[in-house]
Amino acid sequence: MLGMLRQGGRGLVKCVVRRVSASTSSKHQSPVGERRYIPRRAVLYVPGSDDRKLLKIPSLAADCIVLDCEDGVALSMKDAARSKIRHALHTQAIDFSGKDCSVRFNSVESGLCEEDMREVLSARHLPPTVHLPKVDSPEHLAWFADKLRTLLATRPLQDKLRLVIFTESAESLLCLPDICRRGLELSKDAPFLLDAIVFGSDDFCADIGATRTNEAKELLFARQYVVTVAKAFKLQAIDLVYIDYKDLEGLRRQSEEGAGMGFTGKQVIHPGQVAVVQAAFSPPPHKVEWAAALVEAFEHHQKEGKGAFSFRGNMIDMPLLLQARNILQLAAVTTK
Amino acid sequence: MLGMLRQGGRGLVKCVVRRVSASTSSKHQSPVGERRYIPRRAVLYVPGSDDRKLLKIPSLAADCIVLDCEDGVALSMKDAARSKIRHALHTQAIDFSGKDCSVRFNSVESGLCEEDMREVLSARHLPPTVHLPKVDSPEHLAWFADKLRTLLATRPLQDKLRLVIFTESAESLLCLPDICRRGLELSKDAPFLLDAIVFGSDDFCADIGATRTNEAKELLFARQYVVTVAKAFKLQAIDLVYIDYKDLEGLRRQSEEGAGMGFTGKQVIHPGQVAVVQAAFSPPPHKVEWAAALVEAFEHHQKEGKGAFSFRGNMIDMPLLLQARNILQLAAVTTK
Amino acid sequence: MLGMLRQGGRGLVKCVVRRVSASTSSKHQSPVGERRYIPRRAVLYVPGSDDRKLLKIPSLAADCIVLDCEDGVALSMKDAARSKIRHALHTQAIDFSGKDCSVRFNSVESGLCEEDMREVLSARHLPPTVHLPKVDSPEHLAWFADKLRTLLATRPLQDKLRLVIFTESAESLLCLPDICRRGLELSKDAPFLLDAIVFGSDDFCADIGATRTNEAKELLFARQYVVTVAKAFKLQAIDLVYIDYKDLEGLRRQSEEGAGMGFTGKQVIHPGQVAVVQAAFSPPPHKVEWAAALVEAFEHHQKEGKGAFSFRGNMIDMPLLLQARNILQLAAVTTK
Repeated sequence: MLGMLRQGGRGLVKCVVRRVSASTSSKHQSPVGERRYIPRRAVLYVPGSDDRKLLKIPSLAADCIVLDCEDGVALSMKDAARSKIRHALHTQAIDFSGKDCSVRFNSVESGLCEEDMREVLSARHLPPTVHLPKVDSPEHLAWFADKLRTLLATRPLQDKLRLVIFTESAESLLCLPDICRRGLELSKDAPFLLDAIVFGSDDFCADIGATRTNEAKELLFARQYVVTVAKAFKLQAIDLVYIDYKDLEGLRRQSEEGAGMGFTGKQVIHPGQVAVVQAAFSPPPHKVEWAAALVEAFEHHQKEGKGAFSFRGNMIDMPLLLQARNILQLAAVTTK
Repeated sequence: MLGMLRQGGRGLVKCVVRRVSASTSSKHQSPVGERRYIPRRAVLYVPGSDDRKLLKIPSLAADCIVLDCEDGVALSMKDAARSKIRHALHTQAIDFSGKDCSVRFNSVESGLCEEDMREVLSARHLPPTVHLPKVDSPEHLAWFADKLRTLLATRPLQDKLRLVIFTESAESLLCLPDICRRGLELSKDAPFLLDAIVFGSDDFCADIGATRTNEAKELLFARQYVVTVAKAFKLQAIDLVYIDYKDLEGLRRQSEEGAGMGFTGKQVIHPGQVAVVQAAFSPPPHKVEWAAALVEAFEHHQKEGKGAFSFRGNMIDMPLLLQARNILQLAAVTTK
Repeated sequence: MLGMLRQGGRGLVKCVVRRVSASTSSKHQSPVGERRYIPRRAVLYVPGSDDRKLLKIPSLAADCIVLDCEDGVALSMKDAARSKIRHALHTQAIDFSGKDCSVRFNSVESGLCEEDMREVLSARHLPPTVHLPKVDSPEHLAWFADKLRTLLATRPLQDKLRLVIFTESAESLLCLPDICRRGLELSKDAPFLLDAIVFGSDDFCADIGATRTNEAKELLFARQYVVTVAKAFKLQAIDLVYIDYKDLEGLRRQSEEGAGMGFTGKQVIHPGQVAVVQAAFSPPPHKVEWAAALVEAFEHHQKEGKGAFSFRGNMIDMPLLLQARNILQLAAVTTK
């Protein structure tokens, strides 16, 4: 009897200006309106210092490749990693076609981040996406925005860098809404657009003293809270790593569970995990069909100058339209 | 060895003025002190536009009937729904005895809410309870209070309308404490008393991109957070719909789980679900006996002018007394 | 491929000054830097009014003994409990060696707390640790700090009292970060150091209307949230009681689950529960070995005047060093 407006009904008009908390006076505009959706179903780390692994990138099927300066690189190899990553970007020697080419810096508190940025961002070509790990407070983002502005001051940007942040501590989790709010505010003026949150479960477990299990019951609150915050701010949410990389059945189960919770992608630590993960985070055919029909109906109404419209019995609003477009973009990547 | 003051021991005196967050300077007085408890174990939606279903209401056993303007009514039928609901209230043609007669408006952001209110609230008899769906921010409640004040300015109210709000998005969930705080503040002056929170799981899942399962593990954080916030503000908490309406065993399991989590009722989408749900949310006999004896003891002490008192070894405070009264009211409804 | 810096990698330097929320302007310094770690794996309550049980204390193996004025003591016995506890502290008649000797006062809102404090804290020897139950707001801590300052004004303290607070209501849970922030601020000047949070599950269940089960699924959010907040503020987290004290297998399961979630200890209601609980919350041998080697390496580097250093391939920061020291202290207690 309850209306079956499930796939649709968020009302006619959705406020563009949304405040997440009444205690904040600043408003943020959701900057997702027109941006291109970059799929990051499988997020695979490649140590920037490892030539052999860098050379394998073209053969990898993950849709987000992370050239890593951080945890994947020993302290003694930090210089080498920066230099190799800069070189790869500068010469475009590696073929990233069909993939999100991204770089993970060291954290703000590591003391290594500025040097990472200076070197990597001096390459002729910038990575479309950068990752900032261990963001524990809004101040980290402000620091990062400041450095980025300085380093890119003389470079005209065609597109802002997409920013992926990591939440990896109890402190970070507790202030995640504040971090996101600040990130979206900074996205207005800084050379980045906050785009995704990664749940860094291993550092999080170390921080709270938890013991990881494959079932990850100990992380249920943290994971569901990360999804909730990410989606409240219209960001992608990237789920934890499945450590036991030989157990593909367990990986499949956890991937589908994460997708079912609302995550949009998952970190992987081995190329063998990519296919299972990408399948779990790809839209099923009936959703693709729905999305295609909806977008077509929208464009038809647009041409006729109409506003709100009904589709298959449901009122269509902007979030639904964006959702449909994202599904189509994901589908295009998946099936190509 | 730990004191077995379980059913009792919240101390002698409970502050009436409670602040939920130190960052708020405003205090709210819990307005639950004297109000009558309206049981809403099974909350059943009836589309306002559907004559056949409206006529069946007297035969329904749910203790809260929702005359729906929102998701259960197609856009082309909104006018018809308003008009039929107004007529039903105006003429009192439908027998609601023993039930909470309530109306669900469209959401503030739908652009339809004001017209719903104007029409429905022009009936000679007002519904005791109104539902406001998709409350995403405290501002929605302020808007609603404002409209309600205007529409009811010339009507003397015997009782304020009870207000049931819906949390159905990530944004709403994140600011639910702010929404409730504002709702209770507004309850002082506006023609409503905030009374309950409904967890709108289907829109919530659509908003965060989650996939509903019967076990609802993907909603564990959201459900338990809704209960926690509701109870912190002394509000009823109404649990999610069990979609698979033919599976009564699954419904029973989920109803008992929800009651065990602290929910006070559950949404139902089919009359066949009512009996199972009401049983799960009814107090067991030993609790009824406890409550009856406690209330009797309290009244005895009141007559003698005594304050705090001990009952079956435990100190009795106001929250416990209210809990006991609620149990008796629920029991009275259940067993009549 | 992802760096295996799991047990180590929180970066080079960890800010000492951390702000948990950008909306707070005050900064708190983590006061954990130099304090001695007091293990509280099993937290056992002994009613202060019960001579027989008080006499048994030397035979108990729990590493935290709570002389209780609160839930374990009937209202008519409050005076007796205070007086007996004061006497025990004053004469040091009970051997507490190897145990944390602590006292639980009644809650601030009970109206009994001040008298508890006055009597107990007039003993010649103060308990190293005091427990404050039912802390529902930061104001409770401010009240407590104020009374403590007054009562101890003329006594020079060798060590501040360690303060263990209880979160036992929905309201308390919702403002737990505010409570902790205030507690750490007060710890700078007041005669206490906030040291641990206990999750009081039975009162919490009564408050939210939940029904306790042995599996405690209904408390999953609350437990994981308590751990997250505690660890964000570098506090110990003490898990719920396992009520069914004859079921040692269930106790073991729940203890290991709690330890796996990040709790550092657990409340027990029967001496027979102590061994199982202490085993579950003791560090396994490989962690002890790791910690010993890390601390040795740190001291070696300190002597040579070096700062940040690498250990087994990972960068070592202060939190890790503290974690290692805690493990060693726990291990020392366990194996003695």
